[in-house]
Amino acid sequence: GFKTEVLFFPDKNVACKEFFTATLGCEKVTCGFSHDTSSLSRLYQNLSNAKESIDVCVYVFTSSHLASVLIDSNNKGVHVRLITDSEQCEQEESQIWRLRSEGVQVRHDESSFFMHHKFVIIDNKRLINGSFNWTRQAVIGNQENLIITEEPHVVQAFMQEFTSLWEKFNPQ
Amino acid sequence: GFKTEVLFFPDKNVACKEFFTATLGCEKVTCGFSHDTSSLSRLYQNLSNAKESIDVCVYVFTSSHLASVLIDSNNKGVHVRLITDSEQCEQEESQIWRLRSEGVQVRHDESSFFMHHKFVIIDNKRLINGSFNWTRQAVIGNQENLIITEEPHVVQAFMQEFTSLWEKFNPQ
Ligand SMILES: [Zn+2]
Ligand SMILES: [Zn+2]
Repeated sequence: GFKTEVLFFPDKNVACKEFFTATLGCEKVTCGFSHDTSSLSRLYQNLSNAKESIDVCVYVFTSSHLASVLIDSNNKGVHVRLITDSEQCEQEESQIWRLRSEGVQVRHDESSFFMHHKFVIIDNKRLINGSFNWTRQAVIGNQENLIITEEPHVVQAFMQEFTSLWEKFNPQ
Repeated sequence: GFKTEVLFFPDKNVACKEFFTATLGCEKVTCGFSHDTSSLSRLYQNLSNAKESIDVCVYVFTSSHLASVLIDSNNKGVHVRLITDSEQCEQEESQIWRLRSEGVQVRHDESSFFMHHKFVIIDNKRLINGSFNWTRQAVIGNQENLIITEEPHVVQAFMQEFTSLWEKFNPQ
């Protein structure tokens, strides 16, 4: 069975998105990013290996590289859904508008409280959860953690939470 | 064995600290807090059942009730250690100065990045980890999660992270 995996940040180097997510890998002769395994590279691999669905709940989303991974998956036919916080959408570096304009389904809360989760469910069977917001600062600066698990009743509980918030934040 | 437990916030009502942590329970004739099981009550019970140690890593700590639970445990002889973020110590409602003045050992980062973890390790064998900062807003308003696990290699990884940060943030 799948063994629960624990990731800590900050990473020493920033992982190369292409190397860990693109079919052809990184084609640069000289790449400024890292091709070594790191916490971000593990997140990249988990996201790009999704076959059917990626359900993300994240408070702050300013990483353009992580946004690109979701957009690429969505374009490949993986069903990507994103829930975020209303105040954070208005941040200058927020990737939310770009994700929406590229066709990713996004919903957000309508309250002054925070939609403060930071988790993603891959193919309804793998959960990645922790303190990690999808920002560059969380990768290279902050102390952060992520736990990756396939424990069924844990994944199930987060799937229910996602579904419940997805309905709750339906703008209709 | 222990089954991993998942908690979601916000709670409908604020749990009574005395009812869930005090030896004699709640002695009020009319109590304004809730005596029903909730996510906060489960956190209270886990903290107050600690026999030997409570190691906390939390980014924001403004809940005076949760501070009181740590102070009570520390006074009973449980070894309580807390790691937090330097900027957050300076918040007006921060409980850090109160905890220090009551004898709880506290260390914090010295960087402009965030010590953004939100986890606690009980008796070196149970981990509680998620998005939940120790604030009133996280209890009654925000969407938040906590996972409680005794999976040995997960708990071990967080114990190593705690020890590493405890040494890194040693002011000596
Ligand atoms: Zn590269
Ligand atoms: Zn009471």
